[in-house]
Amino acid sequence: MTLSNEGKKMILALQFVSGYGGEFRSWRLPGASADAYTNMDYQVSIAKKAEEGKFHMIFSADTPALTNDLSNQSPMHQMDPLVSFAAFARETNNIGLVSTVSTTHSYPYNTARTMKTLDVMSGGRIGWNAVSSSMGGVAENFGTRMLPRETRYDMAYEAIEAVQTLWGSFGEGAMVLNKKTGEYADMSKVSYANYNGEYFKTKGPLPIPASPQGQPPIFQAGGGEKGIEMAGKYASGVYANPYTIADAKMHRSALHESAERHGRSGEDIKMLAGFMFTIGDTEEEALERRRQIMDYAPEMETAQRVQYLGMMVNLRISINDININQPLPQELVRQTSPNMMDPRAERVMELIQKGLSVKDILAHGVINYHPVVAGTAVQVADFLEKWFTSGATDGFSIVPDSLHDGVEKFVEQVIPILQERGLFHKDYEGPTLRENMGVPYQYGVR
Amino acid sequence: MTLSNEGKKMILALQFVSGYGGEFRSWRLPGASADAYTNMDYQVSIAKKAEEGKFHMIFSADTPALTNDLSNQSPMHQMDPLVSFAAFARETNNIGLVSTVSTTHSYPYNTARTMKTLDVMSGGRIGWNAVSSSMGGVAENFGTRMLPRETRYDMAYEAIEAVQTLWGSFGEGAMVLNKKTGEYADMSKVSYANYNGEYFKTKGPLPIPASPQGQPPIFQAGGGEKGIEMAGKYASGVYANPYTIADAKMHRSALHESAERHGRSGEDIKMLAGFMFTIGDTEEEALERRRQIMDYAPEMETAQRVQYLGMMVNLRISINDININQPLPQELVRQTSPNMMDPRAERVMELIQKGLSVKDILAHGVINYHPVVAGTAVQVADFLEKWFTSGATDGFSIVPDSLHDGVEKFVEQVIPILQERGLFHKDYEGPTLRENMGVPYQYGVR
Repeated sequence: MTLSNEGKKMILALQFVSGYGGEFRSWRLPGASADAYTNMDYQVSIAKKAEEGKFHMIFSADTPALTNDLSNQSPMHQMDPLVSFAAFARETNNIGLVSTVSTTHSYPYNTARTMKTLDVMSGGRIGWNAVSSSMGGVAENFGTRMLPRETRYDMAYEAIEAVQTLWGSFGEGAMVLNKKTGEYADMSKVSYANYNGEYFKTKGPLPIPASPQGQPPIFQAGGGEKGIEMAGKYASGVYANPYTIADAKMHRSALHESAERHGRSGEDIKMLAGFMFTIGDTEEEALERRRQIMDYAPEMETAQRVQYLGMMVNLRISINDININQPLPQELVRQTSPNMMDPRAERVMELIQKGLSVKDILAHGVINYHPVVAGTAVQVADFLEKWFTSGATDGFSIVPDSLHDGVEKFVEQVIPILQERGLFHKDYEGPTLRENMGVPYQYGVR
Repeated sequence: MTLSNEGKKMILALQFVSGYGGEFRSWRLPGASADAYTNMDYQVSIAKKAEEGKFHMIFSADTPALTNDLSNQSPMHQMDPLVSFAAFARETNNIGLVSTVSTTHSYPYNTARTMKTLDVMSGGRIGWNAVSSSMGGVAENFGTRMLPRETRYDMAYEAIEAVQTLWGSFGEGAMVLNKKTGEYADMSKVSYANYNGEYFKTKGPLPIPASPQGQPPIFQAGGGEKGIEMAGKYASGVYANPYTIADAKMHRSALHESAERHGRSGEDIKMLAGFMFTIGDTEEEALERRRQIMDYAPEMETAQRVQYLGMMVNLRISINDININQPLPQELVRQTSPNMMDPRAERVMELIQKGLSVKDILAHGVINYHPVVAGTAVQVADFLEKWFTSGATDGFSIVPDSLHDGVEKFVEQVIPILQERGLFHKDYEGPTLRENMGVPYQYGVR
């Protein structure tokens, strides 16, 4: 399969995290809003800034549970992304709003209702990242134990179909609103959903009309055979976590193949690769900011990172044995080799070879969940260009270290470069998320 | 038990219905917004108008199902009240926002999360009308059959306690946000909910801090012994449907007694009686509007109303046998007597005695769910004053026939009279719903 982005523009999503950013101690940075989690004015200002930059969408990777220790970190997730999105829907005009809602721990009727209401209210800008919940801590919030993977995926298929059936139950054109004849709705276009699955049953109808994009497109996140299979059947967008261009191409190919197996075009699924960054006027300034964030972490955590870094290159090292402000001693460098279990190891090897201090290697974000660029706006743009023009991905789901200035820097410094290079749109293609993503209209179950 | 409102002001809630009003064909009135259901700008304008009038709260009596025939009626409920409320929370400053969320068909974790997020975002203005779902059509949307009343109430108790326990799990003062020390939250003030009921289990914690009012107050709706019992234990507000002052006093007394049985003060529960109105410059103008709305109904419905009206006064009449534009013939009037099964019958008798035409009797709203005043602003104010000063209720949950001008008329014409008479506050007492209602602060389970 040939993957090409020739003549195309990249799609960009902004990961909202919990309002702070991808580095959970960035809330301590000078200028950061310590109360971003609860401050809706602040959150709306970020959404507006992203829209100013023509971001295609804001993405919320939600989990209905407390998933990290808040003693010194900001939360991984929003208080409730759909509540924030209602505010964003009112206070922005074009940007898409995509939230995770669990397929395991929500009733399809409630999911369908809230998402479609938001879709109507936003003029067709909502997307649903339909994700099965895979953490024991989540299950316990809903009074159950974690279900087997197989069951969770079966439930996810049913949840999506139940929700889409409800969405389609109030037919297009059913809203008449004719004051003269008195016809409010054409009930011949409204039908029961009568969805009758093994895990979910719902009768409907759901009395909410079509939005300008029909209904929210489905997104899928997380790899694995089952994830790719599900994406091929339902997804218009996929949040992927490749670490290299090669990984990304494999994932994208698999998505295209899966789409075709389900009678769709590969082009109808847009893959967005996770990507993190810190922008400085110079690379050194960006690194200094990341060193600062590292210094906010308790010592024990830095010690763990050093140990983990060693494992990535098959070294046993401890923070007590080395000076992290110095490059690794040559006798240790000679012993390094990339750990084949970790796709990030090659990047570590490269930075060791360059003679960076251990702290600076870590500051480059080599242990982060996504690829990281700590550098200038041009370096960030170069990275995105390289991935995009190689056909690795349809776009990116970007995670600034801290939203408070990271979004502004990206919008004001990186986006103009991407636009100049012809890689990013200069304005929204249309009013709906589907139009901006370039995916087909859909109403009801396909 | 003595019920007195001496020295007190009445509490007013505006029932939002679905954006149209209590008469489901009022969407056809000249000037009405036919698209009120989906038009969020319009909905926000209504919320702002209610706030201008210092209404204590907007109330949404939700049911997660289509509950009426939309071929010529507007829907009984909003697309999703919590989505509208997120918009209202952003675009108003003082008015409370109380929504029904089912205790039967929502997971406590999801209910707790969404309601508390809204409460934080609104600065402490949210209330939860915790209602068990009693319709088969609702149950079928959630894949179950209707449960026995006993079970539903047991579930409601559990749902409220599970939600309140989750609310209290993130202790007051747990948010520290100290950039200098790096302490984000004081985790010693965060605890598991570990709620372990028969119907609902949830572990928590729910990582959302206290709002300025702690957490949303609980509301209860619907009478009956079980409803009053539940209200006594949990509710700060009750939506009641008395038709007469005597009924209202009985209900209010029962609520006070129930509160005391649960170790609370009767004053901590505020009863709001449902009340509908149509305001005209003259009574005739108001009646003419209600006749107009009646004329929007299909003929069969008017025929049914005439027949029903007859039953209320122990008469067998058909629309084919009488002229509805005339008073009842004297030989029929002589046969009338109030049907003891219907509290509204006395009012019908009174209007028959006055010699009103059958259509005008109906236009006075004698078959409506709540008492109706069709008349001038003074007549509306007089009604409210009479009920309030007699100690029948703490306030009213008012339902305009159509919100599009009904809210404005009430705010501009009725509220100034009530204020002049010392019956209604001239400004909000404080920023939170609890303060405005005069009910105590609460955090977690009582």
